[in-house]
Amino acid sequence: MSRQSMRANDPKKVSGELFTLTYGSLVAQLLKDYENVDDVNRQLERMGYNIGMRLIEDFLARANPGRCYDLRDTADKIQQAFKLYLGVSPSIGSWSPGGDEFSVVLETNPMAEFVELPDHCLGLRYSNILAGVIRGACEMVQLEVMAWFIADQLKGDNVTEIRVKFVKRLEDAIPAGED
Amino acid sequence: MSRQSMRANDPKKVSGELFTLTYGSLVAQLLKDYENVDDVNRQLERMGYNIGMRLIEDFLARANPGRCYDLRDTADKIQQAFKLYLGVSPSIGSWSPGGDEFSVVLETNPMAEFVELPDHCLGLRYSNILAGVIRGACEMVQLEVMAWFIADQLKGDNVTEIRVKFVKRLEDAIPAGED
Repeated sequence: MSRQSMRANDPKKVSGELFTLTYGSLVAQLLKDYENVDDVNRQLERMGYNIGMRLIEDFLARANPGRCYDLRDTADKIQQAFKLYLGVSPSIGSWSPGGDEFSVVLETNPMAEFVELPDHCLGLRYSNILAGVIRGACEMVQLEVMAWFIADQLKGDNVTEIRVKFVKRLEDAIPAGED
Repeated sequence: MSRQSMRANDPKKVSGELFTLTYGSLVAQLLKDYENVDDVNRQLERMGYNIGMRLIEDFLARANPGRCYDLRDTADKIQQAFKLYLGVSPSIGSWSPGGDEFSVVLETNPMAEFVELPDHCLGLRYSNILAGVIRGACEMVQLEVMAWFIADQLKGDNVTEIRVKFVKRLEDAIPAGED
């Protein structure tokens, strides 16, 4: 299933409920497929990575975000993208002293609405696809990051928090003939 | 993963792109899981059925659609629900002479944007989850229907068309103590 060209200026929206229930079906399917939740977490991250690699193109076309000169710029764009794609505005904060790590903090997580984790799934990072989306999207703009959940309202935390850590700049891999 | 109460008057929206890519991940996962596309079609329908059973509550709370007195009313509500949840307005038509069957016709199908079916998946009913959603939602309001795809733009048809057939009214199963 390959993608045809994505159209800019085409802000199609679907209902959050439909999205949440569809994502729930995906997670439930993975829980059936894999023996343990660590594998499910990994698979969700991988799916998110693939989605992020595609979504970034749409983001660049639609939001026209300009170049990021440092990680603070990147954090701003991630905030903007959450608003554009998930309809929520996370706060950005908890910067590391070295400025190479920050948190994306969601007061409410649309992925996980109406969800309760059963007891045997407490190790599940339910929304792990989001960590993958961030990693995949950044990689497409030559930025290697790690992204992982450090708090989750599904597990009783006050907020849902994704930590993002700069790893390295990747070499530009511009196709021959393009600037 | 059980659902907590759905909130009415809370028209959260997510981007169509994110939804489409997430649904694509789900279909791709099922294609990995099952030996043949018929099983994938069945599984998608079943997932949709479960989603429809939940979504109808949200629909009743949000759209306040009133009671359906005949199948034409039901068709109108389905049209309305497509608008509310998928952001597209299908046309309703091709009524059977007996008035017990109609088509939901989509000029564009948001589930399948950017999708091309590989040759070995030509039997796949990519958007079959929608047929299940219709069946599940109707069943929750005591209406047994069959729903299935008869045309699909992914297979070169001009439109995407879901056929809905009335089967029977189900007996009201009202919990004791409620009207």
